[in-house]
Amino acid sequence: MKRLDLFGLLKKDMNFIEEELYRSIDSTEPLINDTSLHLLKAGGKRLRPVFVLLGGKFGEYDLDKLKRIAVPLELIHSASLVHDDVIDDAEMRRGQPTVKSKWDNRVAMYTGDYIYARALSIAAGLPNPDIHRVLSKALVQMSIGEMEQIRDFFNVDQSVRNYLLRIRRKTALLIAVSCQLGAMAAGARESVNSLLYSYGYNVGMAFQIQDDLLDLCGTEKKIGKPPGSDMRQGNITLPVIYALEQPELRADLLAEIRRIQDGDGQGDARKAVDMIKKSEGIAKAEILADRYINKALNALDLLPDVKTKKTLRDIAHFVTRRSY
Amino acid sequence: MKRLDLFGLLKKDMNFIEEELYRSIDSTEPLINDTSLHLLKAGGKRLRPVFVLLGGKFGEYDLDKLKRIAVPLELIHSASLVHDDVIDDAEMRRGQPTVKSKWDNRVAMYTGDYIYARALSIAAGLPNPDIHRVLSKALVQMSIGEMEQIRDFFNVDQSVRNYLLRIRRKTALLIAVSCQLGAMAAGARESVNSLLYSYGYNVGMAFQIQDDLLDLCGTEKKIGKPPGSDMRQGNITLPVIYALEQPELRADLLAEIRRIQDGDGQGDARKAVDMIKKSEGIAKAEILADRYINKALNALDLLPDVKTKKTLRDIAHFVTRRSY
Repeated sequence: MKRLDLFGLLKKDMNFIEEELYRSIDSTEPLINDTSLHLLKAGGKRLRPVFVLLGGKFGEYDLDKLKRIAVPLELIHSASLVHDDVIDDAEMRRGQPTVKSKWDNRVAMYTGDYIYARALSIAAGLPNPDIHRVLSKALVQMSIGEMEQIRDFFNVDQSVRNYLLRIRRKTALLIAVSCQLGAMAAGARESVNSLLYSYGYNVGMAFQIQDDLLDLCGTEKKIGKPPGSDMRQGNITLPVIYALEQPELRADLLAEIRRIQDGDGQGDARKAVDMIKKSEGIAKAEILADRYINKALNALDLLPDVKTKKTLRDIAHFVTRRSY
Repeated sequence: MKRLDLFGLLKKDMNFIEEELYRSIDSTEPLINDTSLHLLKAGGKRLRPVFVLLGGKFGEYDLDKLKRIAVPLELIHSASLVHDDVIDDAEMRRGQPTVKSKWDNRVAMYTGDYIYARALSIAAGLPNPDIHRVLSKALVQMSIGEMEQIRDFFNVDQSVRNYLLRIRRKTALLIAVSCQLGAMAAGARESVNSLLYSYGYNVGMAFQIQDDLLDLCGTEKKIGKPPGSDMRQGNITLPVIYALEQPELRADLLAEIRRIQDGDGQGDARKAVDMIKKSEGIAKAEILADRYINKALNALDLLPDVKTKKTLRDIAHFVTRRSY
């Protein structure tokens, strides 16, 4: 999956962060090197480091300090993905075979453990105790979210609220603290940190809703995995929950979901995907994503008028318009 | 498995740590509560917290500070065990069904992630950046050790040195930093911290060798799992490496190990265990464990003469004499 298009200084700094990412996972154990490199090379948008650097623009921008937040946050994100792939039994991610499919579940688990430990080891170099507090709280919430994911597999009776709580922990929190910690590391004012947190939180919510929409409406080429993967894995997302609320659809859709569930992840989700795409679920999820983006833009309006605001605004608009 | 027999103040303080351990894992997500509680309730010797408190006796002993090291270190240890059980496909630990057998591998993986995150979140409350540095470095080494374990499964050509490097990362490092961080949190002198590290490191090496000996020579009732579990899981331990060095034994023992390997963890290891018990491997491993204990006692001799030294000496002697 492509990295974000970035211009000027940020592009140069992000290339530096990219190098630091590769350097950070280097070890003397060949297997760990291979799996970690494979994971990093599969790419990703590097959204969290971008947000750290942009957050840093609201204070004294110091790349050397910011890298010690940006690199760990991307590593933590990568570690959580490699563990998620074990849970979801996912063969492909970002158009590449996953660590669990190229090696096995055990190697994937320890790869995640290793990358996670590396992340913490880099973050440990930061002297500001508030940063450790914010980061570690987010990590606890994220890990609770992981377990909620298992709990909610194939749970067709979950509410929209339940879904939102789950993606909050799964995605939004880490993006929120990326923005916030970038500003904190740059010594920005408390009010600035909070507004950036709010911006990141709302962008993160919209980002995950859009991700879940793309899993239904995207093309395999663009999203790097077959559409309907979430359904096959039992991950009941927002458009599905909305579609299930339509009385004339509910019974048929429930039957399809049960059929997929009985297929143990191998079932064909195309019929269910078609039903949802024809339902109101897509439009309603898009509306909710837009509402989160508007909240993010509102937080942005209250921030000091630095040039970076335009980039953050562009990213917010990109989030719900992207097709990958 | 029993906790260590402790007397006086330490016993009271360890009961407090035990309560704090239970409190630390409390969450609103019922599944996480159940699995974490199951893990903690299965017990363990709580060796790492004991070492933290004893290390703290070499400085200004403050239980409120020390708990913020003792609890995370025990949690980190527990998290690594629950992930190890996934890798080893272990059904029993400490006489109880493992999380992976009572629930499943996925739940075990996320339980480990959660407990690990909780540990870091508590440790984050400590203001001393040196403590974060020491702790996070140990975590990286531990996670590399996890991967080495996979690499070395059923590797019958590994050297004694290779085995020692592996148990260093797997066990000795965390015990070493338990002693060291206890002293650091109590503001002890640098030389004291180093000696305690050395004590802990050597005790930890002996502890793991003894653990590996018990897996071969212990009774199921005492060790909480059937003897020979390591062999069945492909974990080639020190007595096995020594036994394989005996020319008259090597071919037959290799054949037995291959047979166990082909049985995919289900094979009967009794014959192999008998061969090793009759070899020189047991005595040679015991001698090496004793050498580590002597090194630990030497480090202890150089420490200031506080009452705690006697307890540390008792523990060192206990390590290689224990049958559980």
